[in-house]
Amino acid sequence: MNRLPECQTLLLELHGGVLHVTLNRPDSRNAMSLQMVSELRAVLAAVRDERDVRALVLSGAGGHFCAGGDIKDMASARAQGGEAYRELNRAFGALLEEAQRTPQVLISVLQGAVLGGGLGLACVSDVAIADHQAQFGLPETSLGVIPAQIAPFVLQRIGLSETRRLALTAARFDGDQARQLGLVHFVERDAQALAERLDEVLQQVLRCAPQANAVTKQLLLVSAGQPSSELLDQAAQWFSEAVTGEEGIEGTLAFMQKRKPRWAT
Amino acid sequence: MNRLPECQTLLLELHGGVLHVTLNRPDSRNAMSLQMVSELRAVLAAVRDERDVRALVLSGAGGHFCAGGDIKDMASARAQGGEAYRELNRAFGALLEEAQRTPQVLISVLQGAVLGGGLGLACVSDVAIADHQAQFGLPETSLGVIPAQIAPFVLQRIGLSETRRLALTAARFDGDQARQLGLVHFVERDAQALAERLDEVLQQVLRCAPQANAVTKQLLLVSAGQPSSELLDQAAQWFSEAVTGEEGIEGTLAFMQKRKPRWAT
Amino acid sequence: MNRLPECQTLLLELHGGVLHVTLNRPDSRNAMSLQMVSELRAVLAAVRDERDVRALVLSGAGGHFCAGGDIKDMASARAQGGEAYRELNRAFGALLEEAQRTPQVLISVLQGAVLGGGLGLACVSDVAIADHQAQFGLPETSLGVIPAQIAPFVLQRIGLSETRRLALTAARFDGDQARQLGLVHFVERDAQALAERLDEVLQQVLRCAPQANAVTKQLLLVSAGQPSSELLDQAAQWFSEAVTGEEGIEGTLAFMQKRKPRWAT
Repeated sequence: MNRLPECQTLLLELHGGVLHVTLNRPDSRNAMSLQMVSELRAVLAAVRDERDVRALVLSGAGGHFCAGGDIKDMASARAQGGEAYRELNRAFGALLEEAQRTPQVLISVLQGAVLGGGLGLACVSDVAIADHQAQFGLPETSLGVIPAQIAPFVLQRIGLSETRRLALTAARFDGDQARQLGLVHFVERDAQALAERLDEVLQQVLRCAPQANAVTKQLLLVSAGQPSSELLDQAAQWFSEAVTGEEGIEGTLAFMQKRKPRWAT
Repeated sequence: MNRLPECQTLLLELHGGVLHVTLNRPDSRNAMSLQMVSELRAVLAAVRDERDVRALVLSGAGGHFCAGGDIKDMASARAQGGEAYRELNRAFGALLEEAQRTPQVLISVLQGAVLGGGLGLACVSDVAIADHQAQFGLPETSLGVIPAQIAPFVLQRIGLSETRRLALTAARFDGDQARQLGLVHFVERDAQALAERLDEVLQQVLRCAPQANAVTKQLLLVSAGQPSSELLDQAAQWFSEAVTGEEGIEGTLAFMQKRKPRWAT
Repeated sequence: MNRLPECQTLLLELHGGVLHVTLNRPDSRNAMSLQMVSELRAVLAAVRDERDVRALVLSGAGGHFCAGGDIKDMASARAQGGEAYRELNRAFGALLEEAQRTPQVLISVLQGAVLGGGLGLACVSDVAIADHQAQFGLPETSLGVIPAQIAPFVLQRIGLSETRRLALTAARFDGDQARQLGLVHFVERDAQALAERLDEVLQQVLRCAPQANAVTKQLLLVSAGQPSSELLDQAAQWFSEAVTGEEGIEGTLAFMQKRKPRWAT
């Protein structure tokens, strides 16, 4: 097969037809840096045509899945202006599109923070297994920005009704609630139960023929219709406007200064 | 801000960035008269560009949310013929479209009757909170008419599977079942719990930046796709044909005479 | 009304405005043969314009609903080549399209095996009532083939998230889980409870005006959008390629030889 790329932000382990991908920036709760986005896209590209890789398992190091976008990248983009924000945002959406379409069965194992972009990744996985204490949420609008690339995929996962509530209230929710919302398929009480459930799902996947699974997944995505690139481009533009606008500046500043933003009465 | 319109059928109270709108025709369980439709649309238009109004709370006076369309308007339309029915029906659909798109967070508090058009309003709210004893339902076909403007919004809220069952059986259901269907987000046991839940949701909404919320809501509605005006026009035409046809005449007559219609064996 | 067709594979019983259709090939757990597909389509066509037939009740003889496609037809198609597979597959999809659109209220009573094509039929019914011990599943990819005509209707019934999991893992699930997934509306503990629930639903349906119900159902299907014929044609092509490809040949051979296929490690 294609060689797997060298990665700074990911741990990769391939055995028994399963590629385990671990987000590995535990100091920042695996915040999704531009480099991590780029490395994940390279991994997906490397395995795309390899039917011997039957499943991808995505998890996070250090007790968290992914706490969302990386603050440092945001600060760096601020120095470069709105266009840099647009590209940074759109690159993450391209990752979601590619993860959604990966011919392998994509399984996410969700512990700790599953916020913003982390929630987006959970929403494009074929099977999602959560710890009951995982913390899910879309905090964007409480920071004066918008869940631009993420919202279309959350919407497709759990429907308009729950997505509008969660996105417009920034409410947090746990693994049990994520199960009730249909965001995840299984919720487990501890690490051992998570591991056992993962084993069970992998055994099921390995009973299924790889090419048949790839074609079936393609059929489902064609049937469902996917968030269009045009929509995601537009969303990146709106993200850029939000983050460079009055609310976005105040929201990120308040966050760094550990105070409430002005609108939070 | 724009002055709020003078209303005969609504109570309006604005404080702390929240506009409380109370449907106030308790003698008819807040049945949706043409005047009420018109006043609700005027209120939505008045606040649309006011980012200082952060949320709208919609509830009903006298223990009911809204029992559906108003019989007197129906009788008056009958005198004027099918075209009047078409317009009456379509005007309610225009209200649903405008309520769906309102940039504010729309919260509905649902008690007592939530039937027909009342159910439609619940389905376009961003957050719906129900009393466990509220009575939901789509009684239209049992009266020989059709849930024309309402069905597309119910469908978007709870999906095809449950909508077809509810619309084709006219089954009633309570707040707990509405929660299970995903029609409402919260179900509470008494008035105090309803008030506490509303407070909690409003606190969450007020943490979120107003412009960011407005843009996020727009993004979600664009992503989801909305019932088209063409579809709603067509539905109004079908409504007019149904209500002036044999079944519609028999159904409304039987309702007024408090007897079973002919088809109900 | 139009005479009901003579059927070899179905039992038909019409009384009180309700046509009871029983799949009657109990020796093969009511596997969906080409003849059964053809007879079901003829029955739907015969009642389509008959408003006196208010509901159709679909069930299976001998304790099973339907175990999926018929192996003998598959073997026969193999002798004729890929084109025969394409046609066989597409004919079943045409049945699903026609059952979905039937103006009558379609009620399915689900016991025992509800697999593959049987699951597809359940997904186009207006009201689905399941025994808690019924066994649901999409076993196709574990046999090296794909749920080509079925997947688009399952997707519309339960959404992308659960459909992708079930189709890519071939997992079995019971009536209680089918209720949780929203695939069925009611789950019952025994035959008497199933019969009582069916009676209750039929009484509700008979309260509703027949033409109003037919128009409402049409409105809902137009609003929801249906799997397109083009998509189902494409899916039939992919099915034909899958079943005549390496995995399909190995999978059906392994099934007949009661051994694991090569990919099932």
